[in-house]
Amino acid sequence: MTGKELAWTILNSSQVADCRIFTVHRNFSQRPRSKDTHDFYVLRCPNWVQVIPMTRAGEVLLIEQYRPGTNSVTLEVPGGIVDPEDKSSEHAGFRELLEETGYRAEKMIYLGRSYANPSIQGNYCDIYLASNIELVQEPNFDEHEEIESRLVPFTEIAGLIKSGAINHSLVVAAFYYLHLYEQSLLKA
Amino acid sequence: MTGKELAWTILNSSQVADCRIFTVHRNFSQRPRSKDTHDFYVLRCPNWVQVIPMTRAGEVLLIEQYRPGTNSVTLEVPGGIVDPEDKSSEHAGFRELLEETGYRAEKMIYLGRSYANPSIQGNYCDIYLASNIELVQEPNFDEHEEIESRLVPFTEIAGLIKSGAINHSLVVAAFYYLHLYEQSLLKA
Repeated sequence: MTGKELAWTILNSSQVADCRIFTVHRNFSQRPRSKDTHDFYVLRCPNWVQVIPMTRAGEVLLIEQYRPGTNSVTLEVPGGIVDPEDKSSEHAGFRELLEETGYRAEKMIYLGRSYANPSIQGNYCDIYLASNIELVQEPNFDEHEEIESRLVPFTEIAGLIKSGAINHSLVVAAFYYLHLYEQSLLKA
Repeated sequence: MTGKELAWTILNSSQVADCRIFTVHRNFSQRPRSKDTHDFYVLRCPNWVQVIPMTRAGEVLLIEQYRPGTNSVTLEVPGGIVDPEDKSSEHAGFRELLEETGYRAEKMIYLGRSYANPSIQGNYCDIYLASNIELVQEPNFDEHEEIESRLVPFTEIAGLIKSGAINHSLVVAAFYYLHLYEQSLLKA
């Protein structure tokens, strides 16, 4: 079978719940070959951005914040929703970095785009290396947001992932995109 | 602030929607320090497992399937829900690999645990290297599941991620855990 033959067709979709940062929908869908139908539940969310902020000295700026999904405080990299006012995910990356940490990046280097969870979510997350960051102001948190930042030598990141201290799948994926980017620089 | 000071306390939780493979909940929560309250929407899902199936010849078994969230056919590795009958995520890994592809693994090597999406989901995904796989039967799909498998030389995986052909964040993360595992073998 080809990808086209595996795909289903959405016949109709209804909203089940409005959860503010996402909505839940029930998609009545049909498998073209067998005409089999099924209702899939999916989330619609805005797209996201994540940045790996790096100082000239090779330190990564990690953040800690409360995450309601796991009801725990997680170690991550800055990021958030690409707002309608953001002209691009790159712009959202500059904005989120500044708001969450007070650091400004010299430039954003695009590393990749990963889909948060294709089985139930449609949105993607663009990933950037925020290079040559500098602290320029106090953080400016969103309501209900409270974030601690700390600089960690880049050489320690792999160990933090292996130990489970960093365990957010999107963040682990982000560091793999960075690794592949660095490998491509070495080969160039 | 410490992690403890960043954490919120769930005062009460109510179910908003039952979406079969997940339920949606509204958690009224309080920030201990400021006594500020807010309602966070979260999903409850079973835990998941993902396996990277590898032949003795160094080929990875990738699968293609329709994903309702993105309404597209994605290139991934086998995996699924850890069922209540599964004694462990390792057992679920053996079962999902066999059901989705017809391949049996000689053993499962634990690579890591990542949280699918801590901001809105509580569940984790355990990741295994399924080594020395062999085709032993026809696949046995769940209802509404239809999967194509193909063997790809391991050396091509990084290129598939860089090109965006593999873009599921959990799958990208899984390959990074495998990379870190291999690095640790080299150092040992």
